[in-house]
Amino acid sequence: MADKKLLDDAKKLAGYRAVEDNVKNGQRVGIGSGSTVKYVVDKIKELGYTDCICVPTSFQSRQLIIEAGLKLSDLSITPELDITIDGADEVDQHFNLIKGGGGCQLQEKIVAHASKELVIVADYSKDSVEFGQNWKKGIPIEVHPMAYVPIIKQLSQAPFNLKATLRMAVNKAGPVVTDNGNFVLDATFQSLNSQHEIEKLNVQLKMIPGVVEHGLFINMTKKVYFGQTDGTIKLRSK
Amino acid sequence: MADKKLLDDAKKLAGYRAVEDNVKNGQRVGIGSGSTVKYVVDKIKELGYTDCICVPTSFQSRQLIIEAGLKLSDLSITPELDITIDGADEVDQHFNLIKGGGGCQLQEKIVAHASKELVIVADYSKDSVEFGQNWKKGIPIEVHPMAYVPIIKQLSQAPFNLKATLRMAVNKAGPVVTDNGNFVLDATFQSLNSQHEIEKLNVQLKMIPGVVEHGLFINMTKKVYFGQTDGTIKLRSK
Repeated sequence: MADKKLLDDAKKLAGYRAVEDNVKNGQRVGIGSGSTVKYVVDKIKELGYTDCICVPTSFQSRQLIIEAGLKLSDLSITPELDITIDGADEVDQHFNLIKGGGGCQLQEKIVAHASKELVIVADYSKDSVEFGQNWKKGIPIEVHPMAYVPIIKQLSQAPFNLKATLRMAVNKAGPVVTDNGNFVLDATFQSLNSQHEIEKLNVQLKMIPGVVEHGLFINMTKKVYFGQTDGTIKLRSK
Repeated sequence: MADKKLLDDAKKLAGYRAVEDNVKNGQRVGIGSGSTVKYVVDKIKELGYTDCICVPTSFQSRQLIIEAGLKLSDLSITPELDITIDGADEVDQHFNLIKGGGGCQLQEKIVAHASKELVIVADYSKDSVEFGQNWKKGIPIEVHPMAYVPIIKQLSQAPFNLKATLRMAVNKAGPVVTDNGNFVLDATFQSLNSQHEIEKLNVQLKMIPGVVEHGLFINMTKKVYFGQTDGTIKLRSK
C-alpha cells in the first residue's frame, strides 16, 4: 500500500504540473487514458479552464471529461488539437514510448497524431534509459479478431522473433476486447539494440495485415513529466 | 445489358479457369469477395472438391461457401492456407492491385497474407498497363470512424496530395460501415509515376494512425486471370 500511495502521489504531481505548464484556457486538448490522466482532468477543472475543448481517447477519459463538467468534443468536430496529455507505460531516453497497457493505443495514437504537441505524464517507475528496461509485458498490438492466430505465428518468426500472447480478460471468460471490437496481443522481445531497430519495428508491425495499431509511439513526444517519490518532478524534454 | 452480360461471361471464364488450373481437392482455400468469386465457388462445388477447407473474406463469401455446401473454416482454426482466389478492381502490368470496391479490403488482405499464393480473377475491364488507368474511384482506405475527418485532411496534404471522400451508403442514411465497423475513404490521385512511388504510398498510407487497412495490394500476387469478351482467357503471370 505504501508503494501504491507513492505511485499515486507521483502520478498526481506529474499530471498537475503538466497542465499548469502547458495548457491554456480555451485550447483544444486531447485527454489520454490511464491512472495518471485522472489528475490531468482534475487540474483542468480546478483551474477553471471551462473554455477548453476536450477530446477523449477512451470510454474512461470520456467519462472523466463529462464528470468534470468540461466541454466534450471529438475529432470529426475538432480535427486539430493544440495539445494532448497522456500517460505511458514506459519512456526511454530517446523518447520512445510503450503504450497500450490499458488497451487504448489506437485512439491514443489517433488523438496524439491530430495534436500539435503530445505531453506525457507518468510516475518514476515508467522512466527507462534503455527501451524495454522497465516494461516487461511486451508491446501491445491491437489486431482484428480474425487474424490473431496467424499474426502470433508471424511474430514468432524472423524478422520479428517476438513472443506474443493474446491478452485475456479478468472479469469475463475470453480475451480483452478493445473499445473498437479488436483483440490485443502482448509481444515480448529479447532486446532492441538500436534506435534504427526500434523505428524499423514500428513500421514492420503496422504493415502486418490485421494489425490495426500498436503501442510503440516513436518521434511523437518531446516532453515528459515524471513524478518522483520526493515530491519533485523530473522533466525530460528536447 | 449487353455489357453486363459480356462482363459476367468474362468473370465466369476467369473464375472457372483459375479453379481448374490451381485448386486441388483437400486444399485450404481462401475465398475472396465480389462478383467474380461467385464463379470460383461454383466451380469448386461442380468439381466435387468437398474436402477443400474454405476460409471466407466477407459476409458475402461466407454465405457462398455455406450455400455451396463446402467446408467452412476461419484463420483461428486454419491459420495457413494453400491458395486464395480473389477478385480485384484493377491490376496493372507490375501486378499492383487496387481492391476494396466492395469494402472488404481488410479481410481480403488478411486472408491473402495467410496464403502461400494469391490468384486473381477478373474480367477484361480490370486489366491496366499503368496504375490507376482504369479504376478512377480511388484507393479504398478503411479507417476508424473517429479519425475520418483528420485523415481526409492529412491525405489532402503532402506527401499524399490525395482527394479522399467518405464512401456513403445507398440503402441507409449515412456512410458505408464495413464488416469491421469502420468507414471507407476513396482517395483519388493524379498520377503515381513509378513503382517506387506506389510502394512508398503503400507504407505511408498504412502508417497513418486510424488507417486500419487500404486497398493497395503490392507484391502479393504473381498470377492473374482476365476473362475476355471472345471467350478466351488472358493469363498474366510471373
